[in-house]
Amino acid sequence: MASSPDSASHEHEAELAFAELAAQLPEGVLVDDPDIVEGYRRDRAEDPAAGRPRAVARPSSTDEVSRILRWANTNGVAIVPRGAGSSLSGGSTAVDGCLVLSTERMRDIAVDPVSRVAVVGPGLMNAEVKAAAAAHGLWYPPDPSSFEFCSIGGNIATNAGGLCCVKYGVTTDYVLGLEVVLADGEVMRLGGPRIKDTAGLSLLKLFVGSEGTLGVFTEATLRLLPAPPKPSTLVATFGEVRKASEAVIAICGKLRPAMLEFMDGPTINAVEDMLRMGLDRTAAAMLVVQSDAPGEAAGAETGLIADIVRAAGAAEVFVTTDPQEGEAFVVARRAAIPAVERLGHLLLEDVGVPIPKLPDLIDGVRAIGEANQVAIAVIAHAGDGNTHPLIVHDPADEDETMRAERAFGEIMDLAIRLDGTITGEHGVGRLKKAWLPAQIGPRAMDVASRIKTALDPKGVLNPGAVF
Amino acid sequence: MASSPDSASHEHEAELAFAELAAQLPEGVLVDDPDIVEGYRRDRAEDPAAGRPRAVARPSSTDEVSRILRWANTNGVAIVPRGAGSSLSGGSTAVDGCLVLSTERMRDIAVDPVSRVAVVGPGLMNAEVKAAAAAHGLWYPPDPSSFEFCSIGGNIATNAGGLCCVKYGVTTDYVLGLEVVLADGEVMRLGGPRIKDTAGLSLLKLFVGSEGTLGVFTEATLRLLPAPPKPSTLVATFGEVRKASEAVIAICGKLRPAMLEFMDGPTINAVEDMLRMGLDRTAAAMLVVQSDAPGEAAGAETGLIADIVRAAGAAEVFVTTDPQEGEAFVVARRAAIPAVERLGHLLLEDVGVPIPKLPDLIDGVRAIGEANQVAIAVIAHAGDGNTHPLIVHDPADEDETMRAERAFGEIMDLAIRLDGTITGEHGVGRLKKAWLPAQIGPRAMDVASRIKTALDPKGVLNPGAVF
Repeated sequence: MASSPDSASHEHEAELAFAELAAQLPEGVLVDDPDIVEGYRRDRAEDPAAGRPRAVARPSSTDEVSRILRWANTNGVAIVPRGAGSSLSGGSTAVDGCLVLSTERMRDIAVDPVSRVAVVGPGLMNAEVKAAAAAHGLWYPPDPSSFEFCSIGGNIATNAGGLCCVKYGVTTDYVLGLEVVLADGEVMRLGGPRIKDTAGLSLLKLFVGSEGTLGVFTEATLRLLPAPPKPSTLVATFGEVRKASEAVIAICGKLRPAMLEFMDGPTINAVEDMLRMGLDRTAAAMLVVQSDAPGEAAGAETGLIADIVRAAGAAEVFVTTDPQEGEAFVVARRAAIPAVERLGHLLLEDVGVPIPKLPDLIDGVRAIGEANQVAIAVIAHAGDGNTHPLIVHDPADEDETMRAERAFGEIMDLAIRLDGTITGEHGVGRLKKAWLPAQIGPRAMDVASRIKTALDPKGVLNPGAVF
Repeated sequence: MASSPDSASHEHEAELAFAELAAQLPEGVLVDDPDIVEGYRRDRAEDPAAGRPRAVARPSSTDEVSRILRWANTNGVAIVPRGAGSSLSGGSTAVDGCLVLSTERMRDIAVDPVSRVAVVGPGLMNAEVKAAAAAHGLWYPPDPSSFEFCSIGGNIATNAGGLCCVKYGVTTDYVLGLEVVLADGEVMRLGGPRIKDTAGLSLLKLFVGSEGTLGVFTEATLRLLPAPPKPSTLVATFGEVRKASEAVIAICGKLRPAMLEFMDGPTINAVEDMLRMGLDRTAAAMLVVQSDAPGEAAGAETGLIADIVRAAGAAEVFVTTDPQEGEAFVVARRAAIPAVERLGHLLLEDVGVPIPKLPDLIDGVRAIGEANQVAIAVIAHAGDGNTHPLIVHDPADEDETMRAERAFGEIMDLAIRLDGTITGEHGVGRLKKAWLPAQIGPRAMDVASRIKTALDPKGVLNPGAVF
């Protein structure tokens, strides 16, 4: 594309603006080295349409974030906030000419074991928060599978979930306070180290899950729980997906398991290919269930769950009160994504449905895979009805990639038809944006847009994501 | 006040407008009989400054609510939404010339035991929702002390809490979906019968706790849990409040009780006056703690809690695994408000602090009571740091009432100084509005106002509350 005089003058203005920002920040915060900037273009969604950022800012303090946003708002520069870049929905995919604002250097942490809170910088990994809490005998529950390489700021931005949610809830349930830098650079504090607080609009809850579109988090106060008792574990296989789903409904109607995970036949086979642990390759579905009731009660609960799953038609049931032995099956479940990944590149879905619709979803996903001639394996946080269909394809094969992308969209269409959601825990980002109106409807879209406009009138915060 | 020609013409316009609304609604929905309207002026806060509504609307359907709000928005008529009128913060206190919109006739309920949700009309009592769930072996946890006479719509509007929150969370944790009529009469649906959903901004969470200022709820989809196991109960008395508070911290650092309630000395004496159950009148504090761990584990947990409270310096400790025997102490705790009410009219506070600040709060409340020469008893959902100082006064005694109101404000000032909240579960309403800016700060006030303006530009929804 030839440079017009207009674009040359625009380019000159942008250069001046970025120079002005650099002068306001300590040495090294603003980086425009193309090799470094390139590393901030994409997130884990690997969007081939990712734009080219002009620079990357790596601030260390709220004050620096505030200067950056004030500058961006004044100059109309797009800001793409970024935690660890582990988004699977393209939430931190760069846009052309933007400034990527990485929170990676904001890594302070203070655990207050008396108030049972952790005050954390957004750049810490989820695993680091867990470890700091554990050092005080405490526990930060939310556990995305990516917990070792996803940032806590990103977790809050997407309202991330994980395996524990069926009993312990999602990220929003653990965010007691936030420091947020708004689009105009002003700093707002919400909530604090108190558990119940209903003073004023629930702004705290609005900002959790806002995917960088309303502000940039610079500090969070997180609720910690006492470490849970050691779990007992049950593994059950089923000849039919519907029976597994009926077992899930029956279990959750009687008690509250601490984990209730699902793998379908293709996933079981992929995991068995990798781990050779003797899983039943003929099973249509497998459930991994844990109870963390205290003491002997965990074993009693998994015993009760065994009765329930047998009554629901389980083929094989295995129960263990040995945490190590149980952990092997959790490892198998966590290995599902890498195991299926050995079959090809993955498009990772995150659709959720009401639990009784789980068999319809899984049958429908199979039909979508067949119609589009792509392999799809399904894992699920079954107790929450939140599934991850893993669509396998070869990015070098253009036609197959197109079919995989079509399947990706058709699965979201299906989830919406089943009264479900296009995203249970990953966020809308850029990849799922086109499906959002069909799920939430024109009124909710309009209300969300009005809020976005009221808080970020120039649209500098994460443009292209969600809205 | 003499009628000016202007006010006469204004009056005429208002008459025409109300007649126009009446014509749009089925017979009996709009009521202007002064005797009936009078009953909708005040809520449980008994605000003497309550205004005079022009009429009351008692719609039975979403469509009727939509017509009412469209009309109100067009004509600039203030709408005061009302559930059961049990607000302690004046959230549904009428303003002059308003239309009170009571949801009392919207009482549909459908429990889906398979998806484990209840789809409810806002006018149902909390207790009715609990009972409908219980008929299916399920449980709707939030349990405000007023559960028999507070509406579920009001619970959602205030993000109400209760005794179970220490383990099971507050109302927002159980709202999966809402149908909301917006200020302009448009109907918006948010969420649905799915447990994890992070698609788009968290509008659902924003509307919970919005105290009728952003929209009127016409239907809610509530999450239900399996009924919890029978609890074991522990009662402990302490010679010093600080020791009770240390016991609370120690308990919550080790395990998750299902209830952790606190009563101070004055409350213990008031309850003992009423119930004569042999409570220790010399105690400075009493804790009532329950575990609902399954089976034998509940007794084991209360045994462990007994060790903890003894180590924290409890004077007397009583433990029972008999649910009936334990219930007597929960009844004593629930009797606290009526018991203290026998001493005079109550101004009921709802301040919360980080748990380690509980002794400072209780000492401070005592000092405020002494300085203002009013009796104040304190009960608390101690595990959440959420306290209810009960300020006793005689409304016929103008001076004492003034001193009680001064104490009411000073307690909120104290809570804010202690990094706490002016309201843990009752809402800001009209009574606490003046303290909100001091708690949440000018930036959060501004952001909340921008959202309010974006969603209700004419300010017809519950004017005078919160904002």
